[in-house]
Amino acid sequence: MEVLTLQDLASSIDTVWVLLCAALVFIMEGGFAFLEAGFISAKNSLNIVMKVFMDCTVGMLSYWAVGFAIMYGADKAGLFGSTGFFIGGDLNHIKLRIPIYAYWLFQAAFAMAMASIVSGAVAERMKFGPYIIYTALAAAIIYPVAGHWVWGVGGWLGNLGMLDFAGSAVVHSVGGWSALAAVIVLGSRSGRYNSDGSINFLPPHNLHLAFLGTFILWFGWFGFNAGSSLSGLDLNIARIALTTNLAAAAGGTVAALFTMFKYGKADPSMTMNGSLAGLAAITAGTAFVSPSSAVIIGAVSGVLVVIAVNFFDRMKADDPVGAIAVHGVNGGWGVIAVGLFAEQGGLFYGGGIHLLLVQFLGAAAVSIWAFAATYLIFTVLKKTIGIRVSAEEEIQGLDLSEHDISAYAFFSDRTS
Amino acid sequence: MEVLTLQDLASSIDTVWVLLCAALVFIMEGGFAFLEAGFISAKNSLNIVMKVFMDCTVGMLSYWAVGFAIMYGADKAGLFGSTGFFIGGDLNHIKLRIPIYAYWLFQAAFAMAMASIVSGAVAERMKFGPYIIYTALAAAIIYPVAGHWVWGVGGWLGNLGMLDFAGSAVVHSVGGWSALAAVIVLGSRSGRYNSDGSINFLPPHNLHLAFLGTFILWFGWFGFNAGSSLSGLDLNIARIALTTNLAAAAGGTVAALFTMFKYGKADPSMTMNGSLAGLAAITAGTAFVSPSSAVIIGAVSGVLVVIAVNFFDRMKADDPVGAIAVHGVNGGWGVIAVGLFAEQGGLFYGGGIHLLLVQFLGAAAVSIWAFAATYLIFTVLKKTIGIRVSAEEEIQGLDLSEHDISAYAFFSDRTS
Amino acid sequence: MEVLTLQDLASSIDTVWVLLCAALVFIMEGGFAFLEAGFISAKNSLNIVMKVFMDCTVGMLSYWAVGFAIMYGADKAGLFGSTGFFIGGDLNHIKLRIPIYAYWLFQAAFAMAMASIVSGAVAERMKFGPYIIYTALAAAIIYPVAGHWVWGVGGWLGNLGMLDFAGSAVVHSVGGWSALAAVIVLGSRSGRYNSDGSINFLPPHNLHLAFLGTFILWFGWFGFNAGSSLSGLDLNIARIALTTNLAAAAGGTVAALFTMFKYGKADPSMTMNGSLAGLAAITAGTAFVSPSSAVIIGAVSGVLVVIAVNFFDRMKADDPVGAIAVHGVNGGWGVIAVGLFAEQGGLFYGGGIHLLLVQFLGAAAVSIWAFAATYLIFTVLKKTIGIRVSAEEEIQGLDLSEHDISAYAFFSDRTS
Repeated sequence: MEVLTLQDLASSIDTVWVLLCAALVFIMEGGFAFLEAGFISAKNSLNIVMKVFMDCTVGMLSYWAVGFAIMYGADKAGLFGSTGFFIGGDLNHIKLRIPIYAYWLFQAAFAMAMASIVSGAVAERMKFGPYIIYTALAAAIIYPVAGHWVWGVGGWLGNLGMLDFAGSAVVHSVGGWSALAAVIVLGSRSGRYNSDGSINFLPPHNLHLAFLGTFILWFGWFGFNAGSSLSGLDLNIARIALTTNLAAAAGGTVAALFTMFKYGKADPSMTMNGSLAGLAAITAGTAFVSPSSAVIIGAVSGVLVVIAVNFFDRMKADDPVGAIAVHGVNGGWGVIAVGLFAEQGGLFYGGGIHLLLVQFLGAAAVSIWAFAATYLIFTVLKKTIGIRVSAEEEIQGLDLSEHDISAYAFFSDRTS
Repeated sequence: MEVLTLQDLASSIDTVWVLLCAALVFIMEGGFAFLEAGFISAKNSLNIVMKVFMDCTVGMLSYWAVGFAIMYGADKAGLFGSTGFFIGGDLNHIKLRIPIYAYWLFQAAFAMAMASIVSGAVAERMKFGPYIIYTALAAAIIYPVAGHWVWGVGGWLGNLGMLDFAGSAVVHSVGGWSALAAVIVLGSRSGRYNSDGSINFLPPHNLHLAFLGTFILWFGWFGFNAGSSLSGLDLNIARIALTTNLAAAAGGTVAALFTMFKYGKADPSMTMNGSLAGLAAITAGTAFVSPSSAVIIGAVSGVLVVIAVNFFDRMKADDPVGAIAVHGVNGGWGVIAVGLFAEQGGLFYGGGIHLLLVQFLGAAAVSIWAFAATYLIFTVLKKTIGIRVSAEEEIQGLDLSEHDISAYAFFSDRTS
Repeated sequence: MEVLTLQDLASSIDTVWVLLCAALVFIMEGGFAFLEAGFISAKNSLNIVMKVFMDCTVGMLSYWAVGFAIMYGADKAGLFGSTGFFIGGDLNHIKLRIPIYAYWLFQAAFAMAMASIVSGAVAERMKFGPYIIYTALAAAIIYPVAGHWVWGVGGWLGNLGMLDFAGSAVVHSVGGWSALAAVIVLGSRSGRYNSDGSINFLPPHNLHLAFLGTFILWFGWFGFNAGSSLSGLDLNIARIALTTNLAAAAGGTVAALFTMFKYGKADPSMTMNGSLAGLAAITAGTAFVSPSSAVIIGAVSGVLVVIAVNFFDRMKADDPVGAIAVHGVNGGWGVIAVGLFAEQGGLFYGGGIHLLLVQFLGAAAVSIWAFAATYLIFTVLKKTIGIRVSAEEEIQGLDLSEHDISAYAFFSDRTS
């Protein structure tokens, strides 16, 4: 019989944990795909799922070739990494008890998630080809640079003491503010805003699909947050899983009640986004705050997301799925909330304002980076190959114009 | 390098196991939502998913604030617990190798499941607001009291030796008989029963959605049953996972064949419910019976569920999804089956009738409690705020009347 | 406190790992069901889900009663096993650190998968009753015999040194070539091929359902491949999970780009099948090849699947979901690729052609076996009880003819 040591077992517990959590983070891609598809019109819904699928395929290869190295490679001036392309080269500065391959896979699933946040905001009018280029660049540069700042060994925000446990800033703020830049360059859907300033309601075509996405995202978030411990031996994973779930519950509860109060009826889309906003917000502090604080953080998100969705709509930043509100605004709220609620260093726990200021700075820095980089990429794409389908194609729908097929063919049952 | 002990590793194995199983139990909520939505009409299907989502959000907060304390707090007279509100206070009587937060999360997912069983039975006519109140009370009182009796330290049924490994009684019988009380107070859907006693078939609007729910529930049941060991070191988890799956397979096989024999064609809804009935039944004895016994228990469920669905329909207890038959009847059957098939103490294994009688008593006690408590709550709600939508709203559908939106808007594709 | 040993912990880590991976493999059944249902017409889509559900129910019981014994029982002449019916009898020749029940469950989920591959190819015209007989025989004989040859203790292909880590040959080639035989005996769907040799496009009725299936399958493949280590202590599971995902990403990327290049637009069905083909191909070598090799293997699959789908269509082998191309062709490619890319023994790594030849032989042997056994079974069924619905039933659709109900009843919302 083989000789086993405690360290062998410890490594295997951590590896099993991280790999299963990576699978949970991966299935979140299905969650994004169906959430977004459900929220938009049928005629564009297949196209959006294809775009998210490109995040999983093209995006993963891009992160493999380049992104991981930029994010976790040997540091250059606190700004980006420089080794580890194709998971090769010197990566000894990363201290791990798990195999580098397990670590890589978990990180890659995060890169996909960031790009998928953006896909929803640009739905119903962005061309497929340029989206593939965007997702490749998002996974290679936009996400990894921000990630290096906070999580890379030697990153400048990490060095300042910024706390972002599982990525309210690195994934959600980056995704959300990247989405805002994309929407600004791309423009709103035709027919969304009237010249008198009023807004046309464009109904979600399948809210069961959206709820399926929401359930999958919530499910996958167990892995997203608790897996970020990178260790099953870290029993704080219990707190992480608990605060994650309580924040989601509070966000959904408050959004449902708030819309009942405001509109007279509980709004399903806002309720879903309320829970997702709570999840995006708790992600930074999940390991550092108490269960009660998680409930408060999530409850605030449940109100914030409703206000933010309406705000961006009034600003004519046309985001069909609410990605900017859910991920941008609430990701930012979550980063700041760490400065308030962290049991070590939070303002409400006697830690003063130092951490809070660092958190503000960090949230702002990664958001500005994501906004600026995306604005640049979208502008270049717009002026070269173009990013938007034609007005005729928009009327026809992107499923037919980009893929020559509809998502649904219920009524074409053939009779030989 | 940190110093690790065998006990550290043991705790971490158990914690990893319980957290991942908790995620599996959580995703069962998606299963309930889509199973129920698929079985009913499109016009009410969004409302039912919203109700299940309230089980996850409002229900979780309610279990956090109150329910857990009633269920697992320090015992009062064998009847209920009294400490642990907001997961605070003295909980030392619970002997755990895992963090209390992991234990709590796993238990909370069970509380949601119990409420979600009821949501299906009251579909298509119950108002949204009162349902929120019901789910809060179910998670705070109905489920926890029954749970304390069987699983709480000092609970009177547990003290008598009742065996209910993962909750055929505590979750499924409680859910099923709570559902019956709710249906009786609420009344049947308009158009379901004719004055001549005949029954109108109200077709399920989307059986793929129902099958999606069934696959998710079966998948999640791995966690529901095997996670109830609370320990990955308990290698009996292999038996548990095996018997769980064999019972589901037998239930589905027998229900399909039984309906082929009875009606000439295999009935998809009954086949799904056959597997779910097998799962509800094996849940009590999954750790105690042999694989062959699991097949027998599941096979009986496959017949029982068909008979029970028809029985309750003839009784005009209008349960659109068969929740009473699946969870109430087969949960009860499963509890009793332990008294027959348990390798330790079962009648068929030479254990005499003592255990069988205790199981009967336990199943009856929790079922009567759930029925009575729900009957009372529903009656009070009915006489105060009302529990049923108006006849006009029922015709219009609850999606529009309660949420101002339809689940589907396939045909509203806008042309700018 | 109990006394724990390192071996106790090692067993529990492995058991936890295998059980959770078994759950992931189980949910792949939902993946097959929805992938296939989405790819075909609405009127036959419920029937196909019911058939896959029979793989889970009847197929599991058949594997329990007979199949496992044929596959893993005490060897007879290298051809089949002979002990372990009903998981009883002498199984000491299987050296395990996990309980036999955990091992069994993981293997059973593989048997279901093999049958489910075939269900898609025979969709839209095969009768339900004969399919149940087929799935019972597939799980009892077809799959287990091939499995014994490669994975059983004493199997002749395993003895020759054939490498098939998680079943590109044993599951996917067997499924794919069994599907081809089934399709040949069954004949094509009416209306598929015209007398002038042209092919009618029969549109997939719901590509969201198909994408749901694809996401689930990819998710479950984490368990399918990495769980085949049967041990969480084998840190090579990190490589396995990585290569599995990279191959899927490469297959999807290449299929999308290849169809963009070939047809001008990215084809969603081919993109899904590209990722699935990459997964089917990497399954044999996932533990033995480098990440870069996995990308190459997957990329080849992305082209191969497009060519193969078109090839079988020109041959009038009518496979509505592309199962022969995805699983048969790419399963075979994956087995051969081990002979090229394996770091130990592969041609490109200086290992000569011995392994390559063994892999060829193995792929051919199991494929011929699966084809021949299925051809025989289908021919006998055809000449006795019949395997094909009538022309009228085919026009009506199998959901109504076989189950008296449609998958969807969107428009029957009742108004009392």
